[in-house]
Amino acid sequence: MDEFALIQKFFHPLQGEDDDSSAEDFILKIGDDAAVWKGQGNLAFSIDTLVEGVHFTPDIPPEDLGYRVLAVNLSDLAAMAATPSFFTLAITLPEANPVWLEQFAQGMKTLAVHHGIALVGGDTTRGPLTITVQVHGDCPKPIKRSGACVGDDVYVTGFPGDAASGLKIWLDKRAQNLTETEAYLVDRFHRPTPRVELAQQLAPYLNSMLDVSDGLVSDLGHIAKASDVDLQVQVDWVTPSDQNVTCVGADSALKLALTGGDDYELAFTAPQKYRQEIADIAAQTGLPVTLIGRVHDKAEADRFGRVSLFPESYAVKQGGYNHF
Amino acid sequence: MDEFALIQKFFHPLQGEDDDSSAEDFILKIGDDAAVWKGQGNLAFSIDTLVEGVHFTPDIPPEDLGYRVLAVNLSDLAAMAATPSFFTLAITLPEANPVWLEQFAQGMKTLAVHHGIALVGGDTTRGPLTITVQVHGDCPKPIKRSGACVGDDVYVTGFPGDAASGLKIWLDKRAQNLTETEAYLVDRFHRPTPRVELAQQLAPYLNSMLDVSDGLVSDLGHIAKASDVDLQVQVDWVTPSDQNVTCVGADSALKLALTGGDDYELAFTAPQKYRQEIADIAAQTGLPVTLIGRVHDKAEADRFGRVSLFPESYAVKQGGYNHF
Repeated sequence: MDEFALIQKFFHPLQGEDDDSSAEDFILKIGDDAAVWKGQGNLAFSIDTLVEGVHFTPDIPPEDLGYRVLAVNLSDLAAMAATPSFFTLAITLPEANPVWLEQFAQGMKTLAVHHGIALVGGDTTRGPLTITVQVHGDCPKPIKRSGACVGDDVYVTGFPGDAASGLKIWLDKRAQNLTETEAYLVDRFHRPTPRVELAQQLAPYLNSMLDVSDGLVSDLGHIAKASDVDLQVQVDWVTPSDQNVTCVGADSALKLALTGGDDYELAFTAPQKYRQEIADIAAQTGLPVTLIGRVHDKAEADRFGRVSLFPESYAVKQGGYNHF
Repeated sequence: MDEFALIQKFFHPLQGEDDDSSAEDFILKIGDDAAVWKGQGNLAFSIDTLVEGVHFTPDIPPEDLGYRVLAVNLSDLAAMAATPSFFTLAITLPEANPVWLEQFAQGMKTLAVHHGIALVGGDTTRGPLTITVQVHGDCPKPIKRSGACVGDDVYVTGFPGDAASGLKIWLDKRAQNLTETEAYLVDRFHRPTPRVELAQQLAPYLNSMLDVSDGLVSDLGHIAKASDVDLQVQVDWVTPSDQNVTCVGADSALKLALTGGDDYELAFTAPQKYRQEIADIAAQTGLPVTLIGRVHDKAEADRFGRVSLFPESYAVKQGGYNHF
């Protein structure tokens, strides 16, 4: 199968139909030297790469990989309270394996259809498996990392730590003889849920937000630094999932919730006066949105803002994942 | 050097200054979950990946690599007659080598400054050296591949074949004891010139255009197919550079001009009535813009348009580079 046939067969179907609402914003999609968008408003965009052996194991099911590469990018748009509209894909493949590609494209399509977004351009090259996606979305009011105010509540969505537990189970056992609970956790690693709709509902009440990819405490540090404030996290308010506690025990589950990566949940700060509104949104959507701490003045004027844990005796390694 | 320090040191300087004209089109650039653009008009964008060992040799000077990865992407915008405005960079590195990164960023900056474009977002990961750039530009009137009309003249800019000769010299000799002519050809491979300004001047007179990355005859085939016409190229009108003829002889230089890849020149079709206008632009800019053929009706109704050579005795392999 040559490069052009491969694009035609597997990636053209991800363009969506010409009568999709997103189609009318495009003069050109796949097939020319560039795509041309004629939409209006603020366009948010984010680019992310997943590398085999670094971000996923070589034996990840291709359908999960297709889902995951789009999910982690959409999570960046969610963190800006943006509405995803289209994406590009640059994929480097060691070989053109039609079975693999079919499944990869199917996983990507599942999430693309859910969010009503179209693939509008890309590049296909040969080499070590590396996948780069750039997502684009409408962003009328971006929620920045730098907006946290002293006195804000600190929140996290979902159950952080599930993905880190899922990764450990996957590395230990792959898909062999998994309990239902283990399979759930592996799925949280392979198929994170970008909190797009939740972020949009919450956005009117928030001062700052980001998505948690490197670990909760570590990523909150980015808000602290960008906003020039200190954040204090109440360790016993952080709630790991029942599944995670079942699998690894309460202590390990809590530690993973504070430090584990790959959850793609949202962490944000909001004025205390909006507690009821935020609780109502959580109740309506059925998703946990957990109050876990408070924004404080910086303790020392001459350093960056940082995150502290309470009780202080609970120490975790901060700094998160670093590629180098 | 950690990932954040690396981005701060080498890639933040590519953001440009806050008083650049492009800065006012941005609410956010590097440093949050996404960049946010609030510009107006048609936005053209194109994504391309360069892989070590496929698109460049491991010993390419890093400054040339930084230049090249941006140049090949800008060439796609040129082919749409777009004006580049900003770009994103997803770079996968085997290690964080400050000397290498400094030179890579410098090469990229040279071209970015020339075109007045800013780096506005990106991702840095560890793995086999792979570089993906997405360029974005203003595109009031895209020149598509599909617009060629029967009777149009066919043109190419510059001296196709130079890059293919340069690659061969590089593979044979690297930078050792190159003659001035050889060094010129190697530079045409490592530092192709995206024909951005030339394309904008020509645009009012053109029916179709693309950039020549896989080889002249092969890429003209994309215009033939997209426009559903046949193209005939007069082989003796195609003019290799004097440098190429000096290095490899007239016959080989001509063959490379027809089939060699990596030139990133523009090939286009235009109505015959604009010959004078096109010749005037070529004269003003000092760049060769060579009439090389004619657009014809398809010879057979039930096949895609194709490219033929005259005289017919001159046969070259068509189809261009295929990754798989």
